[in-house]
Amino acid sequence: MIRTPYLLFLGDAPDGLAAKVAQGIRDWRPEHCVGQLRLPGCKADLGLPDMTLEQARAEGAETLVIGVANRGGVFSPAWKDVLADALAAGFDIASGLHTLLRDDPDLVAAADRAGRALHDVRLPAVKYPIADGVKRTGKRCLAVGTDCSVGKMYTALAMEAEMRKRAMPATFRATGQTGILITGEGVPLDAVIADFMAGSIEWLSPDNDPDHWDLIEGQGSLFHVSYSGVTLALIHGGQPDALILCDEPTRPHMRGLPDYTAPSLEVLRDTALALAQVANPACQVVGVSVNTQHMDEAAALDHLAAVEARMGLPTVDPFRQGAARLVDALAAV
Amino acid sequence: MIRTPYLLFLGDAPDGLAAKVAQGIRDWRPEHCVGQLRLPGCKADLGLPDMTLEQARAEGAETLVIGVANRGGVFSPAWKDVLADALAAGFDIASGLHTLLRDDPDLVAAADRAGRALHDVRLPAVKYPIADGVKRTGKRCLAVGTDCSVGKMYTALAMEAEMRKRAMPATFRATGQTGILITGEGVPLDAVIADFMAGSIEWLSPDNDPDHWDLIEGQGSLFHVSYSGVTLALIHGGQPDALILCDEPTRPHMRGLPDYTAPSLEVLRDTALALAQVANPACQVVGVSVNTQHMDEAAALDHLAAVEARMGLPTVDPFRQGAARLVDALAAV
Repeated sequence: MIRTPYLLFLGDAPDGLAAKVAQGIRDWRPEHCVGQLRLPGCKADLGLPDMTLEQARAEGAETLVIGVANRGGVFSPAWKDVLADALAAGFDIASGLHTLLRDDPDLVAAADRAGRALHDVRLPAVKYPIADGVKRTGKRCLAVGTDCSVGKMYTALAMEAEMRKRAMPATFRATGQTGILITGEGVPLDAVIADFMAGSIEWLSPDNDPDHWDLIEGQGSLFHVSYSGVTLALIHGGQPDALILCDEPTRPHMRGLPDYTAPSLEVLRDTALALAQVANPACQVVGVSVNTQHMDEAAALDHLAAVEARMGLPTVDPFRQGAARLVDALAAV
Repeated sequence: MIRTPYLLFLGDAPDGLAAKVAQGIRDWRPEHCVGQLRLPGCKADLGLPDMTLEQARAEGAETLVIGVANRGGVFSPAWKDVLADALAAGFDIASGLHTLLRDDPDLVAAADRAGRALHDVRLPAVKYPIADGVKRTGKRCLAVGTDCSVGKMYTALAMEAEMRKRAMPATFRATGQTGILITGEGVPLDAVIADFMAGSIEWLSPDNDPDHWDLIEGQGSLFHVSYSGVTLALIHGGQPDALILCDEPTRPHMRGLPDYTAPSLEVLRDTALALAQVANPACQVVGVSVNTQHMDEAAALDHLAAVEARMGLPTVDPFRQGAARLVDALAAV
């Protein structure tokens, strides 16, 4: 568990996209964000107050979160100075980078001296059990995609925000690095040992109140041959009561797989539902979330209406329209 | 790659079952087995010559294979003496135990001194790639099961033996600890990091001659919630051209999951084939392998005939009947 609130480190991000992890935290957990720390030349701006380490500590910040990709997989001297100063000033540090904090001896020594924690959220910090498949109390929703990177995390976070607004008990359960940094906890599923994947999701989403929803962050796709096993472990470990189908309709081929085309939403529905019902026979498909970012507004609305008519399910782009209708569908489960 | 031939270490096995890894090597790779080494009190016997370390070395043995489970997860002093002596005598050591050779400082030091290798086949020794899904040359067969531990490895090994007898080019590709010790190489799939599972199987079964068959060892089951993700990674990384359906019809519930019953062979067929065709649209289901060890001969033959009529596929118990009809079916692909 990463201590909040955060000071978001944007480094020398060349543009806003390079700081998208920080942007995600800013968008979905503004209450965790005390301010931003930018180095000279930084082109990203989250609209948060620019703060020094000392100012942020005075405002209560507990953890410096590296919210930006590092170039070339190494920490630059400028970064390392900031990170060492942060530890000395009493910050923990959290990072989702491939370059691990723990592999830098200087940082490890500085953290030891200061008695602070280094969180590499790309690696599991827990010894997960093997899944036992026992039915858990409480309810669970999982977004499944026709492809990777079609908006599953965004959909779950938008649904959680809407549910909180309605005072429905709901918890986003992070299964990826960005999600973990947003919420401060979770399972880095793609880094879990094969035998423990489903068990890690059972651990992540334990028994809960009967009316509580876990919104489990989806990963991969049953149809993406590089990562499909991760997706199936998530479906069987998650025991979802409700599935949301996610699509990005403009892709010429599956992400990173030029020889593969994405399945139809109907094929996704039938495949994912049948597999989900192995672990939870009551599972239902309740809605469709379409990422229409590459369509203009008119084309997007036309497409959403056509999918809704075809599938007979509430169909929205939560970025354009919010997740209210998906939450309505959950509430009806 | 583990050097052959082997001296099989049976330790103080209390019965034959405790030495089932050694028995598997003896059954499927007799040409790799120089002899057996038994400690006082050992009740297992593979029918191989009993040899000292020195005798086995003189016969050309290169690796001492621990073919027996250790009790309590620790190496007893008697075992450790043998293992240390083996290293000094010029043996490598291979083990599939949970207790790792490399975690024993005395053994590590002894191996260093002797310049010998310690093979813990339970852990990956290779940095596997992420799967790219590119179609590979050569042909591949994969056994998929209604449950775990229904005879998938046995089926593949029996098919490989039959194919070698017919001079059909075929290679068993091990994906579990026992299989790896039998063949001397493979991927310990259940210990691979999630993101690299499918890629490890692409690595294991590379491009080959057009008429060559890889018989890829199956793992888990799409319907076993603890391990289903491993199975799907195997299907998508393996790109099978042919599937064999495996069943054990007498189980009251899924292995280790009292609340789950196994699917029918029809459901397994439809689910596995649809998922396999994502990676290889030409994939076919070619036969059924039934483990009838808990049925008497008459009941077994009745059951096999009934399944064959129902499924319209050659159906055998390879232990009772050999794998000839399954290989006939492969040859017709």
